[in-house]
Amino acid sequence: MILAVDSTSKSASVAVADGDGILYESFMNNGLTHSQTLGPMIEQALRQLGLSMRDMDAVAVTVGPGSFTGVRIGVCTVKGLAFPFGTPCVPFSTMEALALSAGPFEGLICPVLDARRGQYYNALFERTADGALTRLCEDRALSHEELEAEMKNFKKKLLLVGDGAEMCYNKLSEKKEAFLADTPVRFPRAGAMAAAAAGRLDTAVDGAALAVRYLRLSQAERERQERLKADKQTQGGF
Amino acid sequence: MILAVDSTSKSASVAVADGDGILYESFMNNGLTHSQTLGPMIEQALRQLGLSMRDMDAVAVTVGPGSFTGVRIGVCTVKGLAFPFGTPCVPFSTMEALALSAGPFEGLICPVLDARRGQYYNALFERTADGALTRLCEDRALSHEELEAEMKNFKKKLLLVGDGAEMCYNKLSEKKEAFLADTPVRFPRAGAMAAAAAGRLDTAVDGAALAVRYLRLSQAERERQERLKADKQTQGGF
Repeated sequence: MILAVDSTSKSASVAVADGDGILYESFMNNGLTHSQTLGPMIEQALRQLGLSMRDMDAVAVTVGPGSFTGVRIGVCTVKGLAFPFGTPCVPFSTMEALALSAGPFEGLICPVLDARRGQYYNALFERTADGALTRLCEDRALSHEELEAEMKNFKKKLLLVGDGAEMCYNKLSEKKEAFLADTPVRFPRAGAMAAAAAGRLDTAVDGAALAVRYLRLSQAERERQERLKADKQTQGGF
Repeated sequence: MILAVDSTSKSASVAVADGDGILYESFMNNGLTHSQTLGPMIEQALRQLGLSMRDMDAVAVTVGPGSFTGVRIGVCTVKGLAFPFGTPCVPFSTMEALALSAGPFEGLICPVLDARRGQYYNALFERTADGALTRLCEDRALSHEELEAEMKNFKKKLLLVGDGAEMCYNKLSEKKEAFLADTPVRFPRAGAMAAAAAGRLDTAVDGAALAVRYLRLSQAERERQERLKADKQTQGGF
């Protein structure tokens, strides 16, 4: 039995799956902060199924990239959940969670999260008719122009998913073979993660070792480093 | 704001959507009876969003075909919910709810519910790259052999969805271009229904006028009619 949790972007999702598929999934995308919604969603999932953390063989969780606060809330909550019974934790890239949640689309899947400062968090996947999902590049932060320049070389249909997908789609100077995912498959779904996690329990880590993947420095870190750099330059100047 | 409810097959699902997409969705498929799960799922959806039935512009509900008990539970629950504020009700065929929940699959979508007595409840839809969904035939009850005979003439990829999809897929003598949907998109999802209902509020009816669509007679009705027929024949014999 696997519990899965996502709160790395605007939406939140919680699910429980066993070897046969999804037993329970909830999804929320109403603008409320994850610190308010995620706890009750997890509690409700276990209560509805009459289960407890003791019944879980693993917890899957998206570890980023995404909203710094959202990533922290999800990862820290899962560290807490995993502690009492030493439940193994299966980390997922938010980009892969989005690709897994996109449903039976045959072609390129292009997750886009708004990373602010003129950038997207993004990666590329290809899904073939048999359902196999292949990652084509690492998670990265890039500008709209950089992504659109790459897209010009793609020869296949491309599905935009993620909470930045609509913005990206609207900004495309040429849509050609690009499609905006419908809302039921546009956001990370814990059900798809929980189902996929069953096949990769070998990648599980101890809750204490579960690490976030921000890709970029947080605003606080960035400002600190800029301050340090400025200090150094000032010092160097004298 | 639209509430959507499905309990016509093995799973149950509840969602709330507004014009921008899905605000909340829950899905459950753990074998518990819908009479136990559906009420708490609806209560939880409204509570999580801080909403009440007063906020709903319509309630969407699957009215069959499907499990007689499941159809009755869903439709009667929605009649009750709609009563206090005269909320309009938008009926969905379970077959269409399944097609809407199948995600961005380009090709034929073939919902299959186990109708017992050697039959499936089924219909056929086609989804094109632009996302448009076209119904190719009316809802019907037919045998595996009848469905497989038809499938031999299809020239496109076909996705099997519904709680009878796995059984149907395993019985196919030739899979060819047939695919079994992954569990995240195999069952009716209230989120997809709620999002679609926004575009068809003109089909809404009063809760009192909301009618079930069983397609076949229930076992009790069938036995009653057989009894009546037998009585008639007996009478005719003397």
